[in-house]
Amino acid sequence: MKAISFDGELKYTAGYPAPVSQEGEALIKIKMAGICNTDLEIIKGYLGFKGIMGHEFVGIVEKVIGAGQDLIGKRVAGDINCACGACDYCMKGLKTHCPNRKTLGIVNKDGAFAEYITLPVDNLHIVPESVADEEAVFTEPLAAAFEISEQIHIRPTDRILVMGDGKLGILISLALNLTGADVTLAGKHDAKLAIAGAQGVKTKNTITSPVPSDSYDIVVEATGTPEGFELALQLVKPRGMVVLKSTVARGKEINLAPVVIDEIQIIGSRCGPFEPALRALSRRLIDVKPLIVKIYRPEQAKEAFEKAEEKGALKVLIDFR
Amino acid sequence: MKAISFDGELKYTAGYPAPVSQEGEALIKIKMAGICNTDLEIIKGYLGFKGIMGHEFVGIVEKVIGAGQDLIGKRVAGDINCACGACDYCMKGLKTHCPNRKTLGIVNKDGAFAEYITLPVDNLHIVPESVADEEAVFTEPLAAAFEISEQIHIRPTDRILVMGDGKLGILISLALNLTGADVTLAGKHDAKLAIAGAQGVKTKNTITSPVPSDSYDIVVEATGTPEGFELALQLVKPRGMVVLKSTVARGKEINLAPVVIDEIQIIGSRCGPFEPALRALSRRLIDVKPLIVKIYRPEQAKEAFEKAEEKGALKVLIDFR
Repeated sequence: MKAISFDGELKYTAGYPAPVSQEGEALIKIKMAGICNTDLEIIKGYLGFKGIMGHEFVGIVEKVIGAGQDLIGKRVAGDINCACGACDYCMKGLKTHCPNRKTLGIVNKDGAFAEYITLPVDNLHIVPESVADEEAVFTEPLAAAFEISEQIHIRPTDRILVMGDGKLGILISLALNLTGADVTLAGKHDAKLAIAGAQGVKTKNTITSPVPSDSYDIVVEATGTPEGFELALQLVKPRGMVVLKSTVARGKEINLAPVVIDEIQIIGSRCGPFEPALRALSRRLIDVKPLIVKIYRPEQAKEAFEKAEEKGALKVLIDFR
Repeated sequence: MKAISFDGELKYTAGYPAPVSQEGEALIKIKMAGICNTDLEIIKGYLGFKGIMGHEFVGIVEKVIGAGQDLIGKRVAGDINCACGACDYCMKGLKTHCPNRKTLGIVNKDGAFAEYITLPVDNLHIVPESVADEEAVFTEPLAAAFEISEQIHIRPTDRILVMGDGKLGILISLALNLTGADVTLAGKHDAKLAIAGAQGVKTKNTITSPVPSDSYDIVVEATGTPEGFELALQLVKPRGMVVLKSTVARGKEINLAPVVIDEIQIIGSRCGPFEPALRALSRRLIDVKPLIVKIYRPEQAKEAFEKAEEKGALKVLIDFR
């Protein structure tokens, strides 16, 4: 099958062996997949992953081994964490924290930049007909945005700052803006800020308009820079909450004294719930299409990755249809 | 009056002018005061404080200007944050976060290493007769320990690790151990661990018995070292909580990726509620006396501070009676 893989270098091949589904798993024919920043990190060596990358996808179920035969022929998106189902975390419903988990295209499992993947039937979510393939491929990152309101209580009277006008920052600002809270997206790129702005999010270009200290109940750090976390600690009010969304925030000397003095709360936030994301897409509450930069064929893997790596690039898709 | 002050160097004088209480304030004659690590930081330049240090005290109300005349003659402990009473934070009951606050012996207000202090009447808490002066002087740090269960939900089924067998770590382990949770105090000093151990807290000397990773629901960082925070992130379970109690945790390159991947929550924790601390002392649920190293006269200020600065020293008191 066609596949884009990484084994120290990025490779496209038409002859990758197709995966074989096991008991409880579905075989899914990929329609479309999206390039995430994690994929860009992987080709720099993140987590030492080797194999087929990609974890944002929409596809059609072709085969199911065991229960769930009614899924055959259905268009689906899928949770990327494949839990063991037997450990303490799985028993408590915390499957995304299963210590034995495999993660699609990230840890020990071939991903979605290919014609076929396998996933446990339990991971699949049917995509409503009204959602186009180009939109459905955003289910996974939009679910990560909804993870914030899954973890913490967002009050409609909260003042919220989302730092970072990249893909994830824009999606987070759009998801949080549905809560009724007073949401501002802060970034440095007028064109990207305008995507959220056109959907009713307040925006702030921090180059021309600095953000005042101690002025937000909740600050979401989605810049992916080490400086972002320390700035978030300044911008949040005493007793406020900082949500960390970037795994790349590392390697800077950080003064934690303000956390204690101002009794700030910090919470890390990763993968989220798919159903709310699919409902928001289906009900047209969030328009993800303006985030698409360009759509490539799998044979154009190198160009697609080059495009995704361009400074300021938003979502690059790969079309396997 | 007798006072121990700092103006670049530590000084004792018998001729310091006594403070004058204003409307709403009480004049309090100090009986006893305790040396806190914050005082040791101040004489190294922390917050640039100049004046009389000290914020842990017990004293007798001698005079009240305005309402609260019934307090005269009463023995009291006192909240150290003097809020403005008019700002948004004060209106929401978050007086300890008032941006205009003065803090006894720490920010813009002379402290308790003196024969007299003034404090707003609202800050005072009557000490039950059954609590000795030597115990009552621990009300403020014990309140800081109770701040943790004031901020977060401690479940009786939680496994909790308190890191650091200093004064605050011991008091925190004793306070949290009352909740029914499975509490372990980790440190490097058998004699200090034994103080908590004698009152039913599990203890672990980390030199001889390393703590396994990912094994606690809640980890309280009270070591006061930059390494403590990063270690806490390792020891807490995914989706667990790290409570930061040390303002001195600064200046180290910290990798925050585990916070996001494991969706760890972090909360800073500072001053706490006095009444639960006084109830615990009065009901003999916590015995603070084993923490007292030595009691000095105010004239022995230099010896008292030298003792408090000794490696591994616990609580040094100053007796103004």
